[in-house]
Amino acid sequence: MADINSKFDIGVTTGPIRGSRKVHVGAKSGSGVQVAMREIDLEGGEPSVRVYDTSGPYTDPDATIDIRQGLEQKRREWIMARGDVEEYDAREVKPEDNGQLGPDRSGGVPGFPNVAKKVLRAKPGMNVSQMHYARRGIITPEMEYVAERENLGREMLREEAARLTARNDGQPWGAELPDYVTPEFVRDEIARGRAIIPNNINHPETEPMAIGRNFLVKINANIGNSAVASDVAAEVDKMVWSIRWGADTVMDLSTGRNIHDTREWIIRNSPVPIGTVPIYQALEKVGGIAEDLNWEIFRDTLIEQAEQGVDYFTIHAGVRLPYVPMTAKRVTGIVSRGGSIMAKWCLAHHKESFLYERFDEITEIMKAYDIAYSLGDGLRPGSIADANDEAQFAELYTLGELTKRAWEQDVQVMIEGPGHVPMHKIKENMDKQLEACGEAPFYTLGPLVTDIAPGYDHITSGIGAAQIGWYGTAMLCYVTPKEHLGLPDRDDVKVGVVTYKLAAHAADLAKGHPAAKVRDDALSKARFEFRWRDQFNLSLDPDTAEQYHDQTLPAEGAKTAHFCSMCGPKFCSMKITQEVRDFAAKQNSDSYLASENIKRETSAEEAEEAEKGMEEMSEVYREKGEKLYLPEGGLATE
Amino acid sequence: MADINSKFDIGVTTGPIRGSRKVHVGAKSGSGVQVAMREIDLEGGEPSVRVYDTSGPYTDPDATIDIRQGLEQKRREWIMARGDVEEYDAREVKPEDNGQLGPDRSGGVPGFPNVAKKVLRAKPGMNVSQMHYARRGIITPEMEYVAERENLGREMLREEAARLTARNDGQPWGAELPDYVTPEFVRDEIARGRAIIPNNINHPETEPMAIGRNFLVKINANIGNSAVASDVAAEVDKMVWSIRWGADTVMDLSTGRNIHDTREWIIRNSPVPIGTVPIYQALEKVGGIAEDLNWEIFRDTLIEQAEQGVDYFTIHAGVRLPYVPMTAKRVTGIVSRGGSIMAKWCLAHHKESFLYERFDEITEIMKAYDIAYSLGDGLRPGSIADANDEAQFAELYTLGELTKRAWEQDVQVMIEGPGHVPMHKIKENMDKQLEACGEAPFYTLGPLVTDIAPGYDHITSGIGAAQIGWYGTAMLCYVTPKEHLGLPDRDDVKVGVVTYKLAAHAADLAKGHPAAKVRDDALSKARFEFRWRDQFNLSLDPDTAEQYHDQTLPAEGAKTAHFCSMCGPKFCSMKITQEVRDFAAKQNSDSYLASENIKRETSAEEAEEAEKGMEEMSEVYREKGEKLYLPEGGLATE
Repeated sequence: MADINSKFDIGVTTGPIRGSRKVHVGAKSGSGVQVAMREIDLEGGEPSVRVYDTSGPYTDPDATIDIRQGLEQKRREWIMARGDVEEYDAREVKPEDNGQLGPDRSGGVPGFPNVAKKVLRAKPGMNVSQMHYARRGIITPEMEYVAERENLGREMLREEAARLTARNDGQPWGAELPDYVTPEFVRDEIARGRAIIPNNINHPETEPMAIGRNFLVKINANIGNSAVASDVAAEVDKMVWSIRWGADTVMDLSTGRNIHDTREWIIRNSPVPIGTVPIYQALEKVGGIAEDLNWEIFRDTLIEQAEQGVDYFTIHAGVRLPYVPMTAKRVTGIVSRGGSIMAKWCLAHHKESFLYERFDEITEIMKAYDIAYSLGDGLRPGSIADANDEAQFAELYTLGELTKRAWEQDVQVMIEGPGHVPMHKIKENMDKQLEACGEAPFYTLGPLVTDIAPGYDHITSGIGAAQIGWYGTAMLCYVTPKEHLGLPDRDDVKVGVVTYKLAAHAADLAKGHPAAKVRDDALSKARFEFRWRDQFNLSLDPDTAEQYHDQTLPAEGAKTAHFCSMCGPKFCSMKITQEVRDFAAKQNSDSYLASENIKRETSAEEAEEAEKGMEEMSEVYREKGEKLYLPEGGLATE
Repeated sequence: MADINSKFDIGVTTGPIRGSRKVHVGAKSGSGVQVAMREIDLEGGEPSVRVYDTSGPYTDPDATIDIRQGLEQKRREWIMARGDVEEYDAREVKPEDNGQLGPDRSGGVPGFPNVAKKVLRAKPGMNVSQMHYARRGIITPEMEYVAERENLGREMLREEAARLTARNDGQPWGAELPDYVTPEFVRDEIARGRAIIPNNINHPETEPMAIGRNFLVKINANIGNSAVASDVAAEVDKMVWSIRWGADTVMDLSTGRNIHDTREWIIRNSPVPIGTVPIYQALEKVGGIAEDLNWEIFRDTLIEQAEQGVDYFTIHAGVRLPYVPMTAKRVTGIVSRGGSIMAKWCLAHHKESFLYERFDEITEIMKAYDIAYSLGDGLRPGSIADANDEAQFAELYTLGELTKRAWEQDVQVMIEGPGHVPMHKIKENMDKQLEACGEAPFYTLGPLVTDIAPGYDHITSGIGAAQIGWYGTAMLCYVTPKEHLGLPDRDDVKVGVVTYKLAAHAADLAKGHPAAKVRDDALSKARFEFRWRDQFNLSLDPDTAEQYHDQTLPAEGAKTAHFCSMCGPKFCSMKITQEVRDFAAKQNSDSYLASENIKRETSAEEAEEAEKGMEEMSEVYREKGEKLYLPEGGLATE
């Protein structure tokens, strides 16, 4: 459904996700905040299901998309209304911002046509971070938006008391998921540093979202240009494509040429927070020579990106001089690019990292634009062999120290985590992070639970991601099938996003999120009742679900037929179950819900006794005299 | 590499798996038992890596494959040598064996040309089960084969003491993995019922394998014909294809017409144990009318399949009359076909299940052919909502009762498990199974940890499978991307097998299997050293790994180049790490392995102190004066 908008150089996928429609829900407070959601209407009189929607205006038929203009700046009025910001002339774009020092001086990207000449920052002495407002007891429209957005499933629970059985079933490992999310709850979580709302005041196009252990588990998708295999148009399309399938934030990991212009195109068209790793661009500015990096160039890069509207920065300030040699004996050493850049700088100058030394000055910049820290794990393990080692945890505890320093200035923080970790070592990562970092949100890459499946690392990492998400990780950074092998294309991005979406949802279920089960139950009920279209539409990827179904049973009729290809049209376990249900419904079946059976073996006596209760059912059955016929056969899990 | 053997109607994939060769290792005992394994030779003087090989003669260039003749019957001499069996005339094939009562009387499958007229069974009063021999203190060649086969990685550990660091690192949840597997250990595990070796005396083509918590975690692939989408040639090819990628056993879930002939083709050509669900065929014989099933027809079907050589039978003897109504209030009722057939029979006759009542008679048959029980979970949950409910656990405790009854006759047993279970309820399944079934091997389908991702259920179930495998499940039944939607094709079978192979390996790693880490470490070392071919060849799917790599960097040179597309040719974190390693190697780095850093924040003093230690390294660096240049850029996880 790629609708290439021929008026423009850059085409993106637009239009509703099949079987659903965009709705806008007004915040309970009546403040006028309108929250975008997606609603899936069901057949058979079933109540429609509302799902969390990251796709922005691109799936709204009423929205006009103009990539060259960028998205509507809905948050701007909220920002201005607080009266804490001043407009000033944006830093002038320099040649080195686009990597013109590089070997490739040709092939420039067209600049974004609608760049703001004036940008915003906090007035002198002011702090515009959401954490700062939260700690002063102020509930911002961003917090209201988040509260409404996180509540969607809970609304259904309220409306349908029957489903309340789903509530509080889970093992939250210390997370405190409320039955209902109020703006005050959001404010309190932000104030305590347990959640963040990444939204730079120069990125007013965002729909506010929260990352925290007591909210829905979020996922991030990485994109980024490459001289080899990608260009700016493809990257903007990948961003739109990734949020269509559920990416909550997107990181632009571009390096090389045109880095500034590429980022501008992405930010102006992104309704989700954008993260970057500023050291990548700083390295470009010094010709790729790590030891030539210095504070002035790094600071200039932070300002450049802050003015563009980057919502969170990965800063590898925990890669300290004394930790570098701890990696020498590893099987895979340092696998983080940012980490290895800083390690090389430290070795070259035999000095402590300037990111660590200048941390408070970086924080000063963060609070003037409300940029959140994503404290990078530059020493994360790159293999099962290196998991949970001295270097990794030495850095983690330093990240904890830096978290507290950032919080002293009311700047929002999340912590990045591994990497490659076997299952039995995953929980230790979560436990140590909570202890070391004062419950600041954890943001992990995977982890991959084995190294032996390149080509399938979205799965090896999805296994680890589901578990660490259950244990308390707030956001999961996706991994695509191309990890370790090459650059993900559009299809890889979708597979990575859907895989992480299902892992995040599995984590919400296991934590006992009050509303997570609603969608599972609705889909399972549709499956049981052979409402095929509902089953497709309720799934994370309706297009693939229907396509797979049609490969065996293409006929449109098969989508309403009461059978599936696994057991064929004439025999079906679910039909038999419906009979069981009909009979049981005819009488109170409690009489033979002999619950002792669960505790111990059933004695012959108990069986006989229960059998008596069955007689009436049996008579009813014979009266009804229904029969099932010969199966056409097929593959089934018996 | 599909090499269709045009001489025959049926073509299968043959030839070595790329980058590896078949080896045969003689058992230490010198008994002459030769164990097939796969060896991956590496570059750069690295020791070759031996991996577990389920692919049989099909990947052996020296083997002659003739589908119409079937595989060599290597085990026959072992069986005859024990002197406990007698030859007799096989039961005559009846029309109803091939479902000729069905609506489709045409399109018969060609009968297998090489059917044995005489078959084997235990002499009167004899018991030929491996458990019976084990309990009498006899170590069979099958047990020797298993011991040698399970040891492959451990051999490497013995040879390379350095890798012994990998040993005993894990959380086994009560499993007792030996550092080295002796034939006596195998015998003892079989005798205790903690492991099984499924190998019908009429399936002498098998390469013996063990299923048990103290051995490598195994996986099963389901195949089966369907009037709609599959035929016998495709099923035999799927069997060969699934074992090529790692299926340890295969279940033939065929229903409908030609069921007997299809099974004959599969068994005669399978080097792995074959499982079936006899009730499927019995149902065909009574025209698909569940209530017309009776003991005589079922017994006849067991004999029919026993003589063909089926290695394990799924028997849903735990679906007892009193449990049926417990499913009435479920969201998805009874989803097991076998379970629903028996539930319907119980309701129709308001009688206890004849499988339960005749269980000891079934066991008599099992021990005469050494067929293992796979006690079916006919009441397993079909949705997250129904997980761990009364019906499921009532049945589980009955399966425990039946396990003990089977063991009284020295018949091997494993227990089938769910299904659909959210992560926080998975461990309870394992714990209850161990308690109820006396540590008999657990054999689970998934479980799927969410219901909302049809089209991706190999992943939703792979997440659950890795966890329950870690907790102690001995064999994981695969799920393909087509689950709930349609019939898996060849590609789906491969994706399902590889997904489960990585899940099983992740479980071995987490349990602390002494040898599991060898392959991960070898692959990670290859990755770090840019031995691309080794990285491909060590992976579970070398073809896909290389194909993905080549999509970005097709040049043959790129496979030896010291860079990858993620960071481009001129900048690489692994190159920096190599420098770090070179410097650290120049002196004892222990001086700044300030391990207190792990426990708490690093004070400035500690940092300074450590810094002193760095000076020498820094000088070395400046002398060396190496530089890195501008990256061409690319996508990387920072």
